[in-house]
Amino acid sequence: MAELVQKYPDRFAGFAASLPMNNPDAAFKETKRAIDELGACGVEVFTNIKGKPLDLPEFAPLWGIMNDYDLPIWMHPSRSSSQTDYSSEPKSRYEIWFAFGYPYETSAAMARLVFAGIFDKYPNLKIITHHMGGMVAFSEGRVNAGWQVMGSRTSDEDYSGVLKSLKRPHAEYFKMFYADTALFGAKAGTECGLKYFGVDHVVFASDYPFDPVPGQFIRDTIEIVDALEISEADRAKIYHGNAERMLKLKPRR
Amino acid sequence: MAELVQKYPDRFAGFAASLPMNNPDAAFKETKRAIDELGACGVEVFTNIKGKPLDLPEFAPLWGIMNDYDLPIWMHPSRSSSQTDYSSEPKSRYEIWFAFGYPYETSAAMARLVFAGIFDKYPNLKIITHHMGGMVAFSEGRVNAGWQVMGSRTSDEDYSGVLKSLKRPHAEYFKMFYADTALFGAKAGTECGLKYFGVDHVVFASDYPFDPVPGQFIRDTIEIVDALEISEADRAKIYHGNAERMLKLKPRR
Repeated sequence: MAELVQKYPDRFAGFAASLPMNNPDAAFKETKRAIDELGACGVEVFTNIKGKPLDLPEFAPLWGIMNDYDLPIWMHPSRSSSQTDYSSEPKSRYEIWFAFGYPYETSAAMARLVFAGIFDKYPNLKIITHHMGGMVAFSEGRVNAGWQVMGSRTSDEDYSGVLKSLKRPHAEYFKMFYADTALFGAKAGTECGLKYFGVDHVVFASDYPFDPVPGQFIRDTIEIVDALEISEADRAKIYHGNAERMLKLKPRR
Repeated sequence: MAELVQKYPDRFAGFAASLPMNNPDAAFKETKRAIDELGACGVEVFTNIKGKPLDLPEFAPLWGIMNDYDLPIWMHPSRSSSQTDYSSEPKSRYEIWFAFGYPYETSAAMARLVFAGIFDKYPNLKIITHHMGGMVAFSEGRVNAGWQVMGSRTSDEDYSGVLKSLKRPHAEYFKMFYADTALFGAKAGTECGLKYFGVDHVVFASDYPFDPVPGQFIRDTIEIVDALEISEADRAKIYHGNAERMLKLKPRR
């Protein structure tokens, strides 16, 4: 990818490094090599590491490294049919694990990072969640009021200290994430996500080449962003301004 | 509940029966008793029956019975911390199973009923999903384009016949569900859900008495519905008109 960016600078503005998080020490070294030697604009991680949540201490150095670089982390969902939807069945059927599991997985990972307090410890941290934050924006009420009484639905674990351990109200941290527009052509979802994350925290993405018809998601997403009732200056932020700022790219002419 | 409705008709317009679905035959009998003898306006089921999906043949008679009565089924999510989010952990932590698991569970159940073809078999069926359809509205793109290529992500099961077995494009069935406004005060989510389900398929609900401050969800939800940019006639549908029609209640004076 570094070669491609160097060879075709007019087509590829930058790249993010993929990390071997199954070996955290190697991942931390690769982060530094990719950014310092290859010019990566950030790194990508998945929402779980071989089934482990991202808030484990073994993964924590990554947040510190990226906080110091002041460069973003893309967070992509990872899930398979092995996570069943019904205890009577061995696996998730009809690809529900994909359609609804990916957003669930994304938002679960966001919650784990919020409640672990990583935004208090690493105030520069910028995490871009694919697919507009999963399901947080639509579930804003559950996140806000629902978690205001965290612990009231649990008797076998003491959650009374979780919210108190955070410097700010828990709901504010969920809005510190960034989100991309890759919603497979969902206009109302895009509007909902934009209202939640705000125009400075939304970046353009299309999920190409995973469209049923090649280019469909690019065209549909551009149509949706073009139709958003926002100023042209705000639209430019979504299309390129926010990315230029976060990725430290030269502004587009 | 039948007694309360009879005793305080100005406060309680009607009630729905809770069914013992762990014993399907008893549940079918109770459905008829509740409607014919007690005057129930519909029945409520949960999204899974002791871990079993609702599309199993043993539960199918219920769809036929309610189709014939032409009265609604409310579908409420059911889930607990026992459904873990990470394979490295024995259970879901921080009540993520509640915040995001409930909407996931709701939409998974909707998908199972759609792909089982129940709306083709029972065209009168009216299922009201709590919490505005879970996550279907926000995930419209995943539902539409994502499932258009169902099977492309699966190698150990043949899904090639599922979409072909349905009379209409799969995406249309998800919009046949009804949805309520109980989103704990999420304005953007309410707008997103309303755009998806349409004004004839959205009914007022507040989730009282599960508000952190008693009455908060009622007040917040009324404020949101009052602020929706729709006609007063459409607002009246959400507040009472749709319910009156579906539940066969006398119109509100």
